[in-house]
Amino acid sequence: MSGPAPAVILVRPQLGVNIGACARAMLNFGLTDLRIVAPRDGWPNPDAGPAASGADSVLANARVFETTADACAGLSLIFATTMRERDLTRRVVTPLQAATEFHGLATQGGLMFGPERTGLLTEDLAVAHAILTIPVNPDFGSLNLAQAVVVTAYEWYRQSLAITDDVLVNHDGPAPHEELEGLIGAVDAQLAANGYYNPVQGRADAARLIMRNLLTRPEFTAGEVRTLRGIVRGLSRKRHE
Amino acid sequence: MSGPAPAVILVRPQLGVNIGACARAMLNFGLTDLRIVAPRDGWPNPDAGPAASGADSVLANARVFETTADACAGLSLIFATTMRERDLTRRVVTPLQAATEFHGLATQGGLMFGPERTGLLTEDLAVAHAILTIPVNPDFGSLNLAQAVVVTAYEWYRQSLAITDDVLVNHDGPAPHEELEGLIGAVDAQLAANGYYNPVQGRADAARLIMRNLLTRPEFTAGEVRTLRGIVRGLSRKRHE
Repeated sequence: MSGPAPAVILVRPQLGVNIGACARAMLNFGLTDLRIVAPRDGWPNPDAGPAASGADSVLANARVFETTADACAGLSLIFATTMRERDLTRRVVTPLQAATEFHGLATQGGLMFGPERTGLLTEDLAVAHAILTIPVNPDFGSLNLAQAVVVTAYEWYRQSLAITDDVLVNHDGPAPHEELEGLIGAVDAQLAANGYYNPVQGRADAARLIMRNLLTRPEFTAGEVRTLRGIVRGLSRKRHE
Repeated sequence: MSGPAPAVILVRPQLGVNIGACARAMLNFGLTDLRIVAPRDGWPNPDAGPAASGADSVLANARVFETTADACAGLSLIFATTMRERDLTRRVVTPLQAATEFHGLATQGGLMFGPERTGLLTEDLAVAHAILTIPVNPDFGSLNLAQAVVVTAYEWYRQSLAITDDVLVNHDGPAPHEELEGLIGAVDAQLAANGYYNPVQGRADAARLIMRNLLTRPEFTAGEVRTLRGIVRGLSRKRHE
C-alpha cells in the first residue's frame, strides 16, 4: 500500500512555538517521527507543548541530534526543503513528487527543514538526496516553518489515503421519480391556474420544459421534494385564507 | 487562463495572530481577498501584523462584515471548511476538488473558515454551496486555522501554475451571492405574507434555514435564479389578476 511515514528533520530551529506547531501539523497528517538538530534554545522547550495543541506524543518521542548527518540515521531518501536555488547539482521535486517517491519506498524517507530565518546551509543540503521546493508566490515566498511542514505532510497523507478526489456524496440521492413528478405537476398546475404560461403557441411547452429541467437538475432528495411541496403551497396560498 | 483567486472568509476568528498567519499563508499562495466576519477582538487587531510577517497588504485590504452572508457579496461558488459531518445535504469535496472547481469558474469563489475552537455554525454553512473537508488523521483532526488556509490555498496555487489555456469553462457556475439572496428574500417575503411560517417561537427561523439550504445546495446558475424568480412570482400571483 503506502510506504512508512517519513521523518521530519528540523535543522537548528529557533522558536519553541514553531517546533510545537510542526509537531501538531505532523500528527494532523499522520507523521510521528520528529528529529531536531541542535535547537537554538535547547530541548525540551517549554514553548513547544502549548503550540502542539495535543500532539504531545510527537514531542515526547522527538529525538535531538548534534548534526544533520546524525539525524538522518536509518533514513533512505531525504529531501531538503528550500525556497532558493543553490549551487548544487541536485534534482528538484515538488511536494507531490516527494510524497509519491516516499510511497514507492519500502524504507523510511525524510523531510529536512532549515532554521526559520536563514534556511539550510550547503553542509545540510549535502546530506540530502534531492531538493524539495514548495511552489509559492514569487513575490512573497517566505513560508512559515510549520506551514512548510503542513504542505509536505498533507501531500504525503493525501496519497496514503489514495484519495480519489471523487466527490464524496453526503446526501440521500435523488427522490424516486414519481415524487419529483408530483412536485413538477403541482408547480405546473399552480402556474397554469395563475396564468403564468404564455398563451402563444408552443411557448407554454418551452416554459414547462425549462421549469422541469430546473427542478430535475439539482437531484433533490425525497426530503427536499417534500419541503419544496410545502413551499409551493405556501407561495400559492391566498392571503388571509 | 485560470479563474480569479478565491476570497478567504474568516468567520468570527478569535486570535489576531491567527488572522495574521492566515494573511501570510494566503499571500504565499497568491490569494489576496481577505474577508473577516465579526472578529472577536475587533479590527484592526495589533497582533495580526507581526504574525503576517510582511503580508501587510492583505491585512490592509481586509474587509470586515457583520454577517457571513454579507461577507459573501460578489462571490459565486462558496466552500465551507469543516472537519465534522453535518446534518446537511451538501456535497463534500477535497481541497484538490475545490481548487479544480475554482479554476473552472469565470467568477470569484470563496473559502469559508470557522472560529478556532467551535467551527462554523449551521447558519454559516447555510450560506455555502458545498463542504470542503481536508483529509486529516482521524485520531488527531484538530487543524490550526492558518494551516487549514495553507492547504486550501496551496492546492489553488499549485493548480494555477499547471493550468493551461486548454482548461475549459464548461458551465456558468453558481449565481453571484446577492442574486441568490434576492431569490431567497423573495421567497421568504412571500411565504411570510402568506402565513407559511409557524408562529411557535423559533420554528419560523428553523423553517427559514431549511428553505435557505434548499435553495443554496443546488448551486443554481444566474439564469436558473432568474427563472426561479419568475416561477415564484407565477406561483404567488393572485388568480384572475
